[in-house]
Amino acid sequence: MSDASPRRRRSGGRAGNTRRTSPDVIRQMPWRVPLNPDRPTEPLDEEGVERMHNASMRILEEIGIEFLNEEALEIFQEAGCKVEGTNVRMGRDWVMEMVGKAPSEFTLTPRNPDRTITVGGKHILFGNVSSPPNYWSLETGKTTGTRAQCADLLKLTQYFNCIHFAGGYPVEPVDIHASVRHLDVLYDKLTLTDKTMHAYSLGKERVEDVLEMVRIAGGHSEEEFAASPKMYTNINSTSPLKHDIPMIDGCLRCIRKGQAVVVTPFTLAGAMAPVTMAGAVAQSLAEALSAIALFQYVRPGCACVIGTFTSNVDMKSGAPAFGTPEYMRATQMTGQMGRYYGLPIRSSGVCAANVPDGQAMWETSNSLWASVQSGTNMIYHAAGWLEGGLIASPEKFVMDCEVLQMMQRYMEPATWSTEPEDLAVDAIQEVGPNGHFFGCQHTQDRYETAFYEPFVSDWRNYEAFDLAGNVWTAERAGKLAKEILASFEAPAMDDGIRQELAEFVERRKAEGGAPTDF
Amino acid sequence: MSDASPRRRRSGGRAGNTRRTSPDVIRQMPWRVPLNPDRPTEPLDEEGVERMHNASMRILEEIGIEFLNEEALEIFQEAGCKVEGTNVRMGRDWVMEMVGKAPSEFTLTPRNPDRTITVGGKHILFGNVSSPPNYWSLETGKTTGTRAQCADLLKLTQYFNCIHFAGGYPVEPVDIHASVRHLDVLYDKLTLTDKTMHAYSLGKERVEDVLEMVRIAGGHSEEEFAASPKMYTNINSTSPLKHDIPMIDGCLRCIRKGQAVVVTPFTLAGAMAPVTMAGAVAQSLAEALSAIALFQYVRPGCACVIGTFTSNVDMKSGAPAFGTPEYMRATQMTGQMGRYYGLPIRSSGVCAANVPDGQAMWETSNSLWASVQSGTNMIYHAAGWLEGGLIASPEKFVMDCEVLQMMQRYMEPATWSTEPEDLAVDAIQEVGPNGHFFGCQHTQDRYETAFYEPFVSDWRNYEAFDLAGNVWTAERAGKLAKEILASFEAPAMDDGIRQELAEFVERRKAEGGAPTDF
Repeated sequence: MSDASPRRRRSGGRAGNTRRTSPDVIRQMPWRVPLNPDRPTEPLDEEGVERMHNASMRILEEIGIEFLNEEALEIFQEAGCKVEGTNVRMGRDWVMEMVGKAPSEFTLTPRNPDRTITVGGKHILFGNVSSPPNYWSLETGKTTGTRAQCADLLKLTQYFNCIHFAGGYPVEPVDIHASVRHLDVLYDKLTLTDKTMHAYSLGKERVEDVLEMVRIAGGHSEEEFAASPKMYTNINSTSPLKHDIPMIDGCLRCIRKGQAVVVTPFTLAGAMAPVTMAGAVAQSLAEALSAIALFQYVRPGCACVIGTFTSNVDMKSGAPAFGTPEYMRATQMTGQMGRYYGLPIRSSGVCAANVPDGQAMWETSNSLWASVQSGTNMIYHAAGWLEGGLIASPEKFVMDCEVLQMMQRYMEPATWSTEPEDLAVDAIQEVGPNGHFFGCQHTQDRYETAFYEPFVSDWRNYEAFDLAGNVWTAERAGKLAKEILASFEAPAMDDGIRQELAEFVERRKAEGGAPTDF
Repeated sequence: MSDASPRRRRSGGRAGNTRRTSPDVIRQMPWRVPLNPDRPTEPLDEEGVERMHNASMRILEEIGIEFLNEEALEIFQEAGCKVEGTNVRMGRDWVMEMVGKAPSEFTLTPRNPDRTITVGGKHILFGNVSSPPNYWSLETGKTTGTRAQCADLLKLTQYFNCIHFAGGYPVEPVDIHASVRHLDVLYDKLTLTDKTMHAYSLGKERVEDVLEMVRIAGGHSEEEFAASPKMYTNINSTSPLKHDIPMIDGCLRCIRKGQAVVVTPFTLAGAMAPVTMAGAVAQSLAEALSAIALFQYVRPGCACVIGTFTSNVDMKSGAPAFGTPEYMRATQMTGQMGRYYGLPIRSSGVCAANVPDGQAMWETSNSLWASVQSGTNMIYHAAGWLEGGLIASPEKFVMDCEVLQMMQRYMEPATWSTEPEDLAVDAIQEVGPNGHFFGCQHTQDRYETAFYEPFVSDWRNYEAFDLAGNVWTAERAGKLAKEILASFEAPAMDDGIRQELAEFVERRKAEGGAPTDF
């Protein structure tokens, strides 16, 4: 298709998006996809890796995984796996052969090609919080999620350059009927952001609708759309040892249309997985690899990511805990095994805290640093998550983005460069033992870009901070979120495409949307 | 000296300290000295290390360091260094020969030998906040430090098992006259804690008094005391490129009595050091190595630690920033160079935040994780620090201890062990796809110790949290601090030793204490 084709001209691409940007409420770092230069932290020694691999393979060979999806069972049968009822056992040679077909790196190209991201290798990408049923802000307290709140969080997703992809609904808009919710939210997502889209695998209609809407938004033909991943789905297994019907169905639909899948077992140690972290990770790996092997059999070379959502429960209450030492090591171990399998890795920025306070930030810092240390490529829930994923919060979103920006800066080689002008022996000589570096030329040439510049941190001394109202971080973040939302301008979109999306939504609503008997 | 000697019988040792312990306000992890199993994060490649080393050596050879201390100048002269006025230039061969004499690992034995700590290698040790002139709590707001507040923070230092050594005064007790402050605080420190002691190098009388009081508290003869390090001093250079009189004097007194020294330049990039991080680190290394070379010349093999306190300033206000990306990389680079020089490493747990909120905890988490990643051995200011070190806070102390305990747990091999019972394939088989791990024997055998157990984190769901008063972390921490202080029982001390300490303090006060014309 030529550049002059109607579709191409209508796409909301590069040109459209440099024209309109939101005004600068804050000075933030420009859009970039950071590369993580650090050698990953790897808890397992060589023998540990082999033991972990062997345990995962034994689970697949001796215990098997339940696949409730009929089509998957047929495919496994055809591939020569041992299928008994819904139980599927698969040999390690076959699993490793299939997993070996998956690319270690691929790109995701959203409607604005400037927002293209690479998943795999040293790339590290941050996504917004996904799927909390509730919203919390200092003003509202905890409330059930609405479309308006969802749209606000989508605006923050778009506004912050350190958010590289859009996850699931940043809050579940419970005020929209479930049959048409995906249509309205995808319309909002596609018009309010130009970053990579996600589809929930919750029934074929939902997946197909999202696939179609993302294709329309990108101005692609069916062929162009399928030629390389433009979006992705993320599924969880039903741990222990089970993949349900719609999740596998959605993945099959995505890979058959050339789109990416992220397989993320949710294995809480002591609840849906063994109480020992190595056991919980082994089970998670087995669950993920079984699905990825299936997808690679169906579409060799399709884009798959192995995810981890292994944490522990609070043994007193059974409640999930996040950002714990156990969580950190599980994330690192999964990252290590992901590299062993040659797969891109997904983890999360999470906490158990109910409000955006100190606990929220040490738990989130722990989980985010574990992600960095694990060599993760996609970090889900990196901004806005509270209460173990039951709450999305604009204050927390803004606070997390400060942490994420610092991580981006942390990964810039300028901070450890040792060129002669960085080592600055001449400047040290010039300033001498009685001088000060504020005024010297070496400083003057660099001070504007030398250091990370915060937007919600308050670095003033206590007296200035106190005089300004003694405003703690959450309150400052809430104020910033409001200013950002008040001045938000949606990214450019061709009117024809917007119209086509609206018509699609209207038609599908008229058809009744998706069934709600799930 | 035999076990039956009067001094030995009077020491507050093992037996004394198992008898009396504070009641359990919280369930905390037992005293232990964690080993950091992680491969350090090393930003510099091999060439970068050589460049950094070369820059430091060029500073020492071509620019020189100012030593204001007469005795140091005479020693440098004797050693063959180029001394011109107060400027000392030293050749890299001599510096490396001297630094090579320093042990890479040594022990510090406080009055309670159960609290002996090893500095160096894979050991990682946490110390309390040191030297803020101000105190802040939710109740008091910001106030000038007092002896009572200092004692409270010392009690927390003793209470928390994750605090391994006592730093400087946890808050400066400004209500005690400076001439006798060290006597009163050391009496408090030695009676309220049995962990490793610190002396300020602020004049010969202060250092000698502390050396003597620590000797008395340990029940040591002069000879026993000098036989191995029982305490340490920590000095800062007067950056750029200068060591003042009392700091070097204090170190010389300590090493001549067999005690340890920590040399920590305070090089704020863009202020007292180049605006580039590599330059700030190169200068910091040169300043530290010049002093350590001196000490090794005077006492070959004496216990020396190389410290880092390199951060950046906020270029808008000139205020120091902490826990920044630049701070993290500087810490990691210094750790890498510390290993290159074969020296134990000191860094810090710090923040710029004024109150114990979200910002405080992400900044502190950043600095603490950088310490872990850098392979640091002693982490100063690990609990209680606010406002760039101008405030000590009991709430922050308790919150930080939760983070430190999690780091201790993070370092326990149990979290990544891959023995067959950890991989738990049998348990996974037993529970199967429709079961739950709560009830199985594998879980029952382990659930009490399987996971980190928090003491100030609230892992309940929002509704339970809300019903309990919606109490944010800082307030929960403040309540805990009060309970701990209310029930605090000092560690055992022989009455004879306590009497001897009191008499020493009384006598030295009668003699006028230390001069205050500094």
